[in-house]
Amino acid sequence: MQKKIYLSGIKPTGTPHFGNYLGAIRPTIQASQNRQLDHYYFIADYHAINALHDPNLLRQYVYEVAATWLACGLDPEAVTLYRQRDIPEVFELQWILTCCTAKGLLNRAHAYKAQRDLNLEKGHDADQGINAGLYAYPALMAADILLFQANKVPVGKDQFQHLEMARDIAHAFNTRYKTSLFTLPEPDLEVGLVLPGLDGRKMSKSYGNTIPLFETPKKLRTLINRFVTDSSRPEEPKDPETAPIFHFYREFATEAQTESLRQRLLQGGIGWGDVKAELFSIVDEAMREPRARYAALMENPAQIDAILAKGAEKARPKAQAFLQQVRQAIGLA
Amino acid sequence: MQKKIYLSGIKPTGTPHFGNYLGAIRPTIQASQNRQLDHYYFIADYHAINALHDPNLLRQYVYEVAATWLACGLDPEAVTLYRQRDIPEVFELQWILTCCTAKGLLNRAHAYKAQRDLNLEKGHDADQGINAGLYAYPALMAADILLFQANKVPVGKDQFQHLEMARDIAHAFNTRYKTSLFTLPEPDLEVGLVLPGLDGRKMSKSYGNTIPLFETPKKLRTLINRFVTDSSRPEEPKDPETAPIFHFYREFATEAQTESLRQRLLQGGIGWGDVKAELFSIVDEAMREPRARYAALMENPAQIDAILAKGAEKARPKAQAFLQQVRQAIGLA
Repeated sequence: MQKKIYLSGIKPTGTPHFGNYLGAIRPTIQASQNRQLDHYYFIADYHAINALHDPNLLRQYVYEVAATWLACGLDPEAVTLYRQRDIPEVFELQWILTCCTAKGLLNRAHAYKAQRDLNLEKGHDADQGINAGLYAYPALMAADILLFQANKVPVGKDQFQHLEMARDIAHAFNTRYKTSLFTLPEPDLEVGLVLPGLDGRKMSKSYGNTIPLFETPKKLRTLINRFVTDSSRPEEPKDPETAPIFHFYREFATEAQTESLRQRLLQGGIGWGDVKAELFSIVDEAMREPRARYAALMENPAQIDAILAKGAEKARPKAQAFLQQVRQAIGLA
Repeated sequence: MQKKIYLSGIKPTGTPHFGNYLGAIRPTIQASQNRQLDHYYFIADYHAINALHDPNLLRQYVYEVAATWLACGLDPEAVTLYRQRDIPEVFELQWILTCCTAKGLLNRAHAYKAQRDLNLEKGHDADQGINAGLYAYPALMAADILLFQANKVPVGKDQFQHLEMARDIAHAFNTRYKTSLFTLPEPDLEVGLVLPGLDGRKMSKSYGNTIPLFETPKKLRTLINRFVTDSSRPEEPKDPETAPIFHFYREFATEAQTESLRQRLLQGGIGWGDVKAELFSIVDEAMREPRARYAALMENPAQIDAILAKGAEKARPKAQAFLQQVRQAIGLA
């Protein structure tokens, strides 16, 4: 029996930070250890051009995302790791799927609606400054997923709609062409943890409140010291749940460590400065090896290229074979 | 010096008729004889899927369009004749260009606006039943044109906007990426003759008033006899300009023949039945050889395939080389 397909992508629009790591990178790498599934991991570089117009920065981020996955333990021999650009079949499929997508579906996409609502609030034309790529990308995302007949796609809450759209589009194609060619993907909801950033809001590049994943220990300590805390004195009891650093801490600590810190906070007697020092020590320890692997990879981009090229070699024949079936179905083969 | 590029496409959504022939096929074949230019002719099969969902019919129309061009005198050795599907680079470029297209530009496209206005007139939701492919296709058309750095593109009045959009999108890319990579195409307005159909309206598949280009003589005669005329008797003077058959006639007659018919109509003394007989005879004669070539090609689709494959072989390396430059510019190579 054919294994089910697990597919996960990351858009290279920034240097990976701990929010990315805990929300997506770590859980998808954990998932990669399930050998009952066939795993596809891709760098969604052609999604990035919608927002990122600096070619050198884009090149840099593609390397950073690949090196992050690899440094954090993704095994490129066991999974298929590739760049979207190396599978050009995805763009042909994207056009085919666009022709099976109701415009009304795109109108309802969160990312588009958010920008449109912002325009309307400001009294501007609804579409002012909005890029057609922002509007059309759900069809590209559907192509990413459907081209490899993915069964399981890890999605956080904010990406759940993408998966629903991919399902809707697949269903529309299957209905129009009286086929069952497209597999309807299912969400894997084990990702999407929302880590608080330095200011307590969700850690996100757009808030400028992130901690990059592979900072030097010195910089890591400085950043951790900048975490927002309340003004309670060391001896006062503190609520762990409302403290961003506690959320960060428990993602790296053992259960016993977490429980111990929780009690010390609840009972009072530990100051925020000490909590930060403990957090630094535990995170720094956890990142020591990945950080070294990351540095080695980033010093040798040719090695990353070679790994990604090998991944594309594994992925592309499957993409080609499946696209050929799609072409047959629509009358273009 | 490099020759300028002339590029022309036909969407295979119906059996070619005399409106297509006189409006687009004949003038673009005439243009192909200008050896100062490098000529690209393509069958826009991936535009057709927006409207045509029957795979067998689509396969049939692709052959019919190719056979029509060839039967009417396009020389596949002298020009590059290919199918859009054989140049997958066009889809990758389409995505790149979509990301450089303002959504507002797509909102203004005639084809989309016409459907939206129809919905609004009927009190429906603006986008009801509208396909994202119909909305997004100006970017695909821009990719068709810009991928081959076309300088001159034949456009009728109703397609002029496509060319303007391709120019706008090319300009947006060049500006964003501080490059002059994309050539801004110019319109060639020598096409777009509007031939009246059997009922006097523009000859168009959607009006059901067409005469297919390669009908048997018997069927051709029957159809020509169905041309609408006024009820004037033979001896009455007639206005040639308002008679659809006169417009048809002069496209195939010599100047002397046209002038003679004009005088006979103005002075009276010729009935519409005789005009139709003359029209049939002159068109039937003009189509005799193309009709035979068309029949021979359609009996041998493998020959058409071979010709189109050769065209793709000529076109594709150019597309690949240019796309590589585009990838460099955006940071994806």
